[in-house]
Amino acid sequence: MKFVVDQQVEDIEMPENLKLNTFLQEFHSDCTHPECGFGFYGFAFGQSPFPVPRLIQEALIKNVNKGEYAAVPGIPELRNAISKYNKHYFGMDVSPDRIYVGPGTKELIFNLLEILHGTVILPTPAWLGYLPQIRFLKKNYHMLPTRANKKIAPNDLRRLALRLQDRQKILILNNPHNPTGLLYNRLELEEIADVCRELNITVISDEIYAQTTYDFSKFVSMGKIYPEGTFVTNGLSKSHAAGGYRLGYVILPQHATDLRTQFKKILATEYTAVSTPIQHAAVPGFEISHEMDEYFEITRNIHKIMGEYTYHRLTSIDGIKATKPEATFYLLADFNAYAPELQKAKIRTSQKLSESLIVHPYHTAIVGGDSLVLERTDFSARIAYVDYDGAAVYQNYQENRPKTHSERTEFVTKNAPKIVSGLDMIEKFFGSLKKDAVDELMLIKNNLKIPN
Amino acid sequence: MKFVVDQQVEDIEMPENLKLNTFLQEFHSDCTHPECGFGFYGFAFGQSPFPVPRLIQEALIKNVNKGEYAAVPGIPELRNAISKYNKHYFGMDVSPDRIYVGPGTKELIFNLLEILHGTVILPTPAWLGYLPQIRFLKKNYHMLPTRANKKIAPNDLRRLALRLQDRQKILILNNPHNPTGLLYNRLELEEIADVCRELNITVISDEIYAQTTYDFSKFVSMGKIYPEGTFVTNGLSKSHAAGGYRLGYVILPQHATDLRTQFKKILATEYTAVSTPIQHAAVPGFEISHEMDEYFEITRNIHKIMGEYTYHRLTSIDGIKATKPEATFYLLADFNAYAPELQKAKIRTSQKLSESLIVHPYHTAIVGGDSLVLERTDFSARIAYVDYDGAAVYQNYQENRPKTHSERTEFVTKNAPKIVSGLDMIEKFFGSLKKDAVDELMLIKNNLKIPN
Repeated sequence: MKFVVDQQVEDIEMPENLKLNTFLQEFHSDCTHPECGFGFYGFAFGQSPFPVPRLIQEALIKNVNKGEYAAVPGIPELRNAISKYNKHYFGMDVSPDRIYVGPGTKELIFNLLEILHGTVILPTPAWLGYLPQIRFLKKNYHMLPTRANKKIAPNDLRRLALRLQDRQKILILNNPHNPTGLLYNRLELEEIADVCRELNITVISDEIYAQTTYDFSKFVSMGKIYPEGTFVTNGLSKSHAAGGYRLGYVILPQHATDLRTQFKKILATEYTAVSTPIQHAAVPGFEISHEMDEYFEITRNIHKIMGEYTYHRLTSIDGIKATKPEATFYLLADFNAYAPELQKAKIRTSQKLSESLIVHPYHTAIVGGDSLVLERTDFSARIAYVDYDGAAVYQNYQENRPKTHSERTEFVTKNAPKIVSGLDMIEKFFGSLKKDAVDELMLIKNNLKIPN
Repeated sequence: MKFVVDQQVEDIEMPENLKLNTFLQEFHSDCTHPECGFGFYGFAFGQSPFPVPRLIQEALIKNVNKGEYAAVPGIPELRNAISKYNKHYFGMDVSPDRIYVGPGTKELIFNLLEILHGTVILPTPAWLGYLPQIRFLKKNYHMLPTRANKKIAPNDLRRLALRLQDRQKILILNNPHNPTGLLYNRLELEEIADVCRELNITVISDEIYAQTTYDFSKFVSMGKIYPEGTFVTNGLSKSHAAGGYRLGYVILPQHATDLRTQFKKILATEYTAVSTPIQHAAVPGFEISHEMDEYFEITRNIHKIMGEYTYHRLTSIDGIKATKPEATFYLLADFNAYAPELQKAKIRTSQKLSESLIVHPYHTAIVGGDSLVLERTDFSARIAYVDYDGAAVYQNYQENRPKTHSERTEFVTKNAPKIVSGLDMIEKFFGSLKKDAVDELMLIKNNLKIPN
C-alpha cells in the first residue's frame, strides 16, 4: 500500500544534529583503522555532560507511583517552584498561572508557533531546531542575518519588520545564544524591545541557557524588559543536565489572560500534560536550595573553563576566528579565511567541511554552518565543548578548583583530553590544508620554471 | 499588548473531560450543602484506578540517572520489548523498527494525522480526543454514525468512502471502543478491512484498551487483519494504569519503509523523544512476565465485574438502555426514552443533562453525548466505572476472588460504594423526572376537573 504523506512533512529536513548522529553511527562501523576504536572527538552534540542533580533524582524515586494524569498546565507545586525560581534567579515576578509546563522547551516553542498567527523573524545564525518547526507549520518567515558581532542589530530588525505585511510579527530571540555562546546585555535588549514595542512585534525568548551564564549577574531576561510582549521559554535540559527528562516551561506575557485559555487548549489537544513523575522530580530542581545553587555554579564554571580553552586554542590557529562565549557550551568558529584552500581541496560547502573533518585521521564531529541557518558556503561551525566525563570532572572541580590561567589550562588537559585532541585535529586539518596549498603553489612555480 | 491567535486554535473546543474537570472544581467549591464534603460520584474520568505495576515503578527507580536524550523512535530495549509484547499477547510479528514511541498515544495519533494527507472518517460515538485534533489540523473529515449495534457498518463505510474525492482516506478505528466498551470480532474487522482494501482506506487503529478485553482470547488487532494499511496505537495509559507516565507507541504498517523516515522527522521536529527514564521504566511493563500477566488478568477481571454490575443496574431502570461492555471501563448509557420528561424539565441537550446530574442532591458526573461526537440532543452518556480505591480493591480481589453472580455483586457493594451510590442517584434522578411528569399530568387532569 502506498501512503500519501503531507507535503509539508516531505519538505522539512531532519534536524541536522540527528542526521549527524545517524551519519556518525554509520561512519563509525565503516572505519577500519585500528586506532578508531576510541570513537570520535565530539564537538557536535549539545548535551550537558553532568549527572542529573541528586535532588531531582531523589524526587523522581519518591514519585514513581504517580500514575495519574497531571493538570494540563502542570502540577501546582511545580508551577509555584518555577515562579519562585524566576524571582530568585532572574528577578522576575511571574505568577504561577502564567507558567505552563510542556514535554521539553522544543515542543513548547512548537506550540507557541502554532498558536501565534503571523510572520516569524529568525535571526541567523540560529539553533538548528527552529527552522524545521517554522517550515512544518507553513509559517511565513524571514531571516534576519546578524552582522560581525553576531547579534541582532535593532535597525536591521526595524527595517525588516517595516517591510512585513502581517498584522503580527514574531521575533525568535535566543539568549544566551546557541550556537555563538553570546549574551545580550540589558541595553541591547532594551534597544530590541523598543523596536518591538514600536512595531508590535511579539517575542519568543528562548532562554534555555540562562542559568549557564558564566558571570551570572550579567544575565537579563527579555521577560523583564518587555513583559507585555514576551514569551519566555526555559527548562531542565541544559542547566539541570536533564535533556532526556523532557521538561520545559513557558512564561506567557503579562495580562494575556485570554491567551492562557487558548494555549491550554493546544496542550490538551496534543499531549494532555507532561509525565507526572517527571513533574514531581523537577520541583526541587527549581526550588531554591544551597545544593542546586552550588550545582549551577560549578557546572557554569566548568563550562566557562572549557569554553575559554576552546576559544583560545581555536583563535590561536592562523586565520580562524570565533565568538567568545559568555554562556552555554558552544561557540561559533569561523573558518572562512580558509575558503581559497577549501575550494582548492574541493570542499565547497560547510556540510562538506563537516564530512571532511569526520573522516580518518581527523575523526572530529562539528555542526556545519548550513545547519545553523547560514549560507551553505559559509565555512562556520558550532563547536560544543562538552566531550568529557561530566561526573568525574564535576568531582575534580569540587576537590580542587583551578584559580589561575595555567591551572585552568591544566584542568582542561587533565579532565578533557578529547577536547584537547579534537582541537589538535582541527589545527592539523587546517595546517595541512595550508601546506597542501603552499606545496601546490611551489609545484606550480617549479613547473613554471621548467620551460624557462 | 493584543495577540493574534491562530483561527484554528480559536475554533477548537477544549476536550470535554478537561472542561468538566474545571466545572467540577468550580462547582464543588460552590456547593454549600454539608453532605457534599464527600465530593461527587465520578463516572466522568477515564482513568484506571490501579497502582502502576511494581515492575515499572522499580525500573523507574533504577533509571532516574538517565539524563541523556533518547533516540528519536525510542530506546532499542523498549522497542524490542514492545515487539515481543505484540507477538505474545496479540499474535503479531512486528519488527522493532516498525515501532515508534511517543509521549502518549494521544500525541502519536496527532502526529499520524499530521503526516497522513487526506480526509478523516470518524465513526461516532467517538472518544472525545479525536475531533479537536482533526479540527486543529484543518483536516477534512466526515462522521460515520454507527447504527443500533454501535459498530461501524461496512456498507455505510463503503458508501461514505465512495463519495469522498480525496486520494487518501483515513479511518479512525477504536477497538476496544471508548465510550461503548464494545469489541470488534475477527469477522467484523475482516469486513471493514475488505472495504478498506477495495477503496484504499488507511486505518488508524487505536487499541489502547486491547489488554483490558475481559475475555482476552477474543481480542483481535486490526494490525493482524490489515497489516499493510493499519497504524496500530497502544501504550501504558490504560492497561498499565499509567496515563500520567505519558508513553505510547505506534506500529507503522508493513513495508512502509519510506514512511518511517518521514515519521521520524515529525517526532524530531516536535519533541525529540520520550522522557528517557520513563522509557526505561516501561520496558518491564511490556516484557513477558508472570507478574505483568497476573496484573493484566486481575485488573481486567475487576473492570469486568464493575462493568457487569453497572450495566445491569442501569438497564434495570425503566427505559434506560446501555451497551454491554466487553472491554475498557466504560459503557454508553442511552437515556433517550426519557426525552419527553427531560424536555418538560427544560433539559434539552446532553450537556444540560450532565449539568442537571451534577447539582445537589445527585452529585453525579457523567460525560454527555455531545462530548462523544453525538448530536447535542442525543441523551446518551459515557459511564466510566472506576470510582474506587484501586489498590485496595486489587488486594481484596487477590485475596478472595468472587466466583458467583451474587459474590460479584457483593464485591462491588463492598469495594465500590461510590459506584453503587452514583447508580442510585441516576435511578433517583430519572425516577423523580418520571414522577414529576406524572404529578404534572395529574395536576393538569385535576385542573381540568375543576371547571367541570
